[in-house]
Amino acid sequence: MATQRTDEAGGNRAGAAAKSAPIHFIVEVLRGQAQVDFMPSALCGVFFAVALFVSGWRYGFYGLLGTALATGTAIVLGVNRDRVAAGLEGFNGCLVAVGFAVFLGADHASTWLLAAAGAITVTVVTAALDQVLSTWNIPTFTAPFCIIATVVIVAAPGFRRIWHSDKNLSAFPGVATGRTALTWHDIWHAFLGNVGQIFFMPQWYVGLLFLLGIFAASRLAGAMACLGSAVGILVAWTLGSPADSVAQGLMGYNSVLVAMALCGVFIKVNGWSVAYAVLGAAVATVLTTGMGNFTSTFGGHAFTWPFVLTALAFVAAVPSFPRLRRT
Amino acid sequence: MATQRTDEAGGNRAGAAAKSAPIHFIVEVLRGQAQVDFMPSALCGVFFAVALFVSGWRYGFYGLLGTALATGTAIVLGVNRDRVAAGLEGFNGCLVAVGFAVFLGADHASTWLLAAAGAITVTVVTAALDQVLSTWNIPTFTAPFCIIATVVIVAAPGFRRIWHSDKNLSAFPGVATGRTALTWHDIWHAFLGNVGQIFFMPQWYVGLLFLLGIFAASRLAGAMACLGSAVGILVAWTLGSPADSVAQGLMGYNSVLVAMALCGVFIKVNGWSVAYAVLGAAVATVLTTGMGNFTSTFGGHAFTWPFVLTALAFVAAVPSFPRLRRT
Amino acid sequence: MATQRTDEAGGNRAGAAAKSAPIHFIVEVLRGQAQVDFMPSALCGVFFAVALFVSGWRYGFYGLLGTALATGTAIVLGVNRDRVAAGLEGFNGCLVAVGFAVFLGADHASTWLLAAAGAITVTVVTAALDQVLSTWNIPTFTAPFCIIATVVIVAAPGFRRIWHSDKNLSAFPGVATGRTALTWHDIWHAFLGNVGQIFFMPQWYVGLLFLLGIFAASRLAGAMACLGSAVGILVAWTLGSPADSVAQGLMGYNSVLVAMALCGVFIKVNGWSVAYAVLGAAVATVLTTGMGNFTSTFGGHAFTWPFVLTALAFVAAVPSFPRLRRT
Repeated sequence: MATQRTDEAGGNRAGAAAKSAPIHFIVEVLRGQAQVDFMPSALCGVFFAVALFVSGWRYGFYGLLGTALATGTAIVLGVNRDRVAAGLEGFNGCLVAVGFAVFLGADHASTWLLAAAGAITVTVVTAALDQVLSTWNIPTFTAPFCIIATVVIVAAPGFRRIWHSDKNLSAFPGVATGRTALTWHDIWHAFLGNVGQIFFMPQWYVGLLFLLGIFAASRLAGAMACLGSAVGILVAWTLGSPADSVAQGLMGYNSVLVAMALCGVFIKVNGWSVAYAVLGAAVATVLTTGMGNFTSTFGGHAFTWPFVLTALAFVAAVPSFPRLRRT
Repeated sequence: MATQRTDEAGGNRAGAAAKSAPIHFIVEVLRGQAQVDFMPSALCGVFFAVALFVSGWRYGFYGLLGTALATGTAIVLGVNRDRVAAGLEGFNGCLVAVGFAVFLGADHASTWLLAAAGAITVTVVTAALDQVLSTWNIPTFTAPFCIIATVVIVAAPGFRRIWHSDKNLSAFPGVATGRTALTWHDIWHAFLGNVGQIFFMPQWYVGLLFLLGIFAASRLAGAMACLGSAVGILVAWTLGSPADSVAQGLMGYNSVLVAMALCGVFIKVNGWSVAYAVLGAAVATVLTTGMGNFTSTFGGHAFTWPFVLTALAFVAAVPSFPRLRRT
Repeated sequence: MATQRTDEAGGNRAGAAAKSAPIHFIVEVLRGQAQVDFMPSALCGVFFAVALFVSGWRYGFYGLLGTALATGTAIVLGVNRDRVAAGLEGFNGCLVAVGFAVFLGADHASTWLLAAAGAITVTVVTAALDQVLSTWNIPTFTAPFCIIATVVIVAAPGFRRIWHSDKNLSAFPGVATGRTALTWHDIWHAFLGNVGQIFFMPQWYVGLLFLLGIFAASRLAGAMACLGSAVGILVAWTLGSPADSVAQGLMGYNSVLVAMALCGVFIKVNGWSVAYAVLGAAVATVLTTGMGNFTSTFGGHAFTWPFVLTALAFVAAVPSFPRLRRT
């Protein structure tokens, strides 16, 4: 799939002369949306954009704004054209903008402006991490988004024109209470919610649209997303997570991303990498609760840090394990 | 001593054909236990295993389980045979399993299962850190253990089947109060407790068994462990640590590890490296309190983070200092 | 300016045989003070030393003590003579000592001793970071100071002979309240305070002395310091920071450093790097509040972490942006 990236991009580049620049840019923006789930596919990006608009029209615009600004900034600064064409400069901007909308309020003018500034800045953070991590041939994943979003969310209560509430959300992490047994209703909501929460969206039908988008780009990736979602639910239930969190997709969105990353996207598919992906998805589920507890003390959020950290470790480790091969 | 590692391992490998695989594996597991204190010595591992059993039979089994699973996972995944033979794939698994037993309760079935999962996962984290840190020829120390243990301890209160208490331990760090003057009883308890607390064990006789194990493997390492323990006590007393913490070995276990690491294990022995080890041991003592305060806010623990961070910095810095030489 | 560093240092080295060692050392110490603001200029160092003495005679001595001990430790340990001559081994020691004086109380004997120990240790941390970051040709900035200061400030309440108060300062971050509109009095105090707070000093006339020192070494650096200070004020006001913090220079000291670093010191001057420096200065302002909120929970402080992290990212990213060139 990583080769698919450059292949599709390459194919399009070959025909670039025949296309007008605006259409070219629109394709790159759509691929940027799709790259949130590793797919360098404009068709997948259409599904993702529709899913965001279905969840709320503002979210749809935030997503397009963020992807377009991050992609545009990369073009203006002269970033490698292959990266831009594959959508790799857009997906963190998409998440930054949608994340700000969800956590700071989509209605405020301040949020629109901050989302724009964040999407421009994320291009610099992406380049910095890319320079550093390429030493070990590791991608940046969604780390640039996680960094920008964490900084802004943690800083926000200190700025009166950004924070439209009179309380800071910082609190000591609590102890899980309440129901842990899952109903069938919980399970299928969780299964689709795990896909939707990658974009912060809890609705089952939004998650379904995202999942269809993944399948439209790659059946393997769709299958791994389903496997990751199932592992997330199973591990959360086994360890005793509150059923409400599981049903909203809050326990499994990182396992979906990890499973896709570790089998197909960055590591070649074989029996070992399937098992590796399952282990990684389980680790990401524990880390989701761990990062949630850690960040709650200073008003942060887990975002996709659990996916980023798990995938960084599991991908970095590959050269030590001859049974696994990088794509 | 770092050469001793490969030497002893090499010697044993030469005779490997004559040994049955199970015996081979047992030797590797014992060396894995000993590598917690940098010793690639099965004899030292026997001392360490006995010490854990003396402290509590469950701890002994947790230690063996963790070391065996981490070592076995490394073999199954095809990690470099020299690393496995030297015990370098086992020690983090040992600490993960014993750490879980101490912090989550040794009696619970959930703790046994989690310890097994943690010991398997620590192999991946070890490989990832090894790939990254080898860029600067720096070892991973016990960082893989610290990472796994921190994630699980911080996440644990969010899982009802792991956390068997109704309160989260997160709290703002306090201010030191009470007695700081040390009695002779405090001092000799601290001296041995500093060695035992590397494995979370406060009893003086358990610490003595660990110290004898180190001396059995290397008199130099034993001497540096004693020096590190003394520096830890002296610095803690000078700065005014509560006497109770000092006496339980909670202030000096990191200085013991740092002193060994910086003079003999990773840096060649000379007058400069002895002084360097003393400075490092002092720094680790301050960092022990610092990490304790930092992690208390989110329900974490200092573990051996102070050793890891101090040793990382002091070993990484060596190429800038011509008076010091890596082993 | 980065070349100016080695040039001036080189010129002085050429005449080294003619100078007595003590005078040589004094020049290196003065340059060390000046390197807090990137200036390898003894004249600038004289301005900075005077500024510290004007703010309080103890601060002046702490600054000289810290710079001298860090520089001396580097010489004793045999660090590359070019680094020492350029003052690059002194500036973190200066900040460590002055920082301890401000945060632990300048009057206590314990603070003097700890400042000495910190200035010695910062040399090791500098070497470690230099070894690691040189992989990507990134300097250490003031990260060594930030690390030492954070560890000691966070650990301090746990040591009775260091901490002379009966309360720990840890607290959840609050929500900004009060006045955000800036008076002219606020603005010009902020403009100079932003320069002085790099050394923790809020007085406008101390800030003015620092600014004159920068201009004495380089008019470009002085201009960028002014630009950075203005951006910090503008961004803080736009986002709604409390006017009191802005007026004390607490919101803009990181933007001053970032602006200098990103246009002239580490990146060649052109229209793009001016814009890059403005973006970086804005990011550092947000990060200043973010780091303040994050560190408040465990009794830490933002120090110059926002500058360090912003500059690390923006300098590391340069190779991805062909419009920017490293000096």
